[in-house]
Amino acid sequence: MPLDETGAISVLPVTGIGEVLPGDRLDEVLAQALGPTDGDRPTLHDGDVVVVTQKIVSKAEGRLVEVDHRDPEAKVRLVEAEAVRVLRRRGELLITETSHGFVCANAGVDLSNVAEGTAALLPLDPDRSARRIRAGLQRRLGVEVGVIVSDTFGRSWRQGVADVAIGCAGLAAVVDLRGTTDAAGRELVATEVCVADELASAAELVMGKDRAIPAAVIRGVSPAWLRQGSVAGEVVRRADEDLFR
Amino acid sequence: MPLDETGAISVLPVTGIGEVLPGDRLDEVLAQALGPTDGDRPTLHDGDVVVVTQKIVSKAEGRLVEVDHRDPEAKVRLVEAEAVRVLRRRGELLITETSHGFVCANAGVDLSNVAEGTAALLPLDPDRSARRIRAGLQRRLGVEVGVIVSDTFGRSWRQGVADVAIGCAGLAAVVDLRGTTDAAGRELVATEVCVADELASAAELVMGKDRAIPAAVIRGVSPAWLRQGSVAGEVVRRADEDLFR
Repeated sequence: MPLDETGAISVLPVTGIGEVLPGDRLDEVLAQALGPTDGDRPTLHDGDVVVVTQKIVSKAEGRLVEVDHRDPEAKVRLVEAEAVRVLRRRGELLITETSHGFVCANAGVDLSNVAEGTAALLPLDPDRSARRIRAGLQRRLGVEVGVIVSDTFGRSWRQGVADVAIGCAGLAAVVDLRGTTDAAGRELVATEVCVADELASAAELVMGKDRAIPAAVIRGVSPAWLRQGSVAGEVVRRADEDLFR
Repeated sequence: MPLDETGAISVLPVTGIGEVLPGDRLDEVLAQALGPTDGDRPTLHDGDVVVVTQKIVSKAEGRLVEVDHRDPEAKVRLVEAEAVRVLRRRGELLITETSHGFVCANAGVDLSNVAEGTAALLPLDPDRSARRIRAGLQRRLGVEVGVIVSDTFGRSWRQGVADVAIGCAGLAAVVDLRGTTDAAGRELVATEVCVADELASAAELVMGKDRAIPAAVIRGVSPAWLRQGSVAGEVVRRADEDLFR
């Protein structure tokens, strides 16, 4: 039987994005890379999800600070300043809670793929960053898309990093399937799926860490997911509801 | 600029898989659903990754036990019997370590989408389950594919569940990009990406929890990832290396 293309999802790398500098407007950068130059057909469609890495969002928003890369203590001081809580320490690795409520390594401070002597901090409000990009793409290209700002996080009990969503707009972060029934007719429990994280992970597969691809487009996402959404409101678990803080 | 199809990944749902019963051979079930009936072209290609949910693997392997769904204490006893360690408890929710070393809710015991009065336990060795499916597909269809057995896990600090890999074959679980350089020429650190988990998450996006789609095919994965791999060997973090046990 041929594979069913109907329910398929495509994950497409966005190429041609150059170096992003403080003050750049990412909606303009993305519109140039994705604009309607493919004949008359826009290359970005209504219902697409655009995933943009934290790194270029932080650069565009000027979230850069000076730090001596050769001085481990300076890096630790910077991480401590960015964190609201340090949960664990092992050598230079700090597992931290950020002002956003994210639990991640080194408060999300990013020392790779930025200019020597600088570090990129997380966007102040990644949901807002996503909303701005979404509104700009709508204005410039006339398309209604979902937007995710992604970052690369470690996980407590599993080796290897994976991309997650730190902000989103025009897209449900968590889709609640509770109350729907399973194939045997019983009510399903615990099926709140974090589709924003799954989409961020899917996007990472085409970006690669060693290539300069900071954005991807995901096509074929369920239209039901394209509603107002927020990582801060739907994904971040409050410390007092968490079993591991 | 048109979107670049070259580096794209497609995630395709596998439809037409009926109820799986103990003793069924999943390679046969998948070969029937994916076999070369599309004219002369096989619908499964060399280099594809086939993602199969834990639920049908457990059913095929007969990992079913009786449990009274209406009796919460019976369910807790079953979970305690399956777990090698209980890390946290809140009401009926137990965060557990399994014999495989996975940390997950309720020892992976699965009460939805199985017959009333039964529960599905995790496969004994999900890497081996993946290897068997891979070998069977190679024998039946003449294709070399990667295989992932996926399951749905919660995360310590984030709301909503996401699919991860609990077993794999013919596919690197973690891709090590350490030693490659970033765009500024500096050596990258901490870029061991758990592509198996990211692929499992991508597959979940086309499966849905309320539809009976227990498998997906991912096409376009980097050929460099298609080597011998293992979730047990690459992803499971040893308790003594973990900061949260």
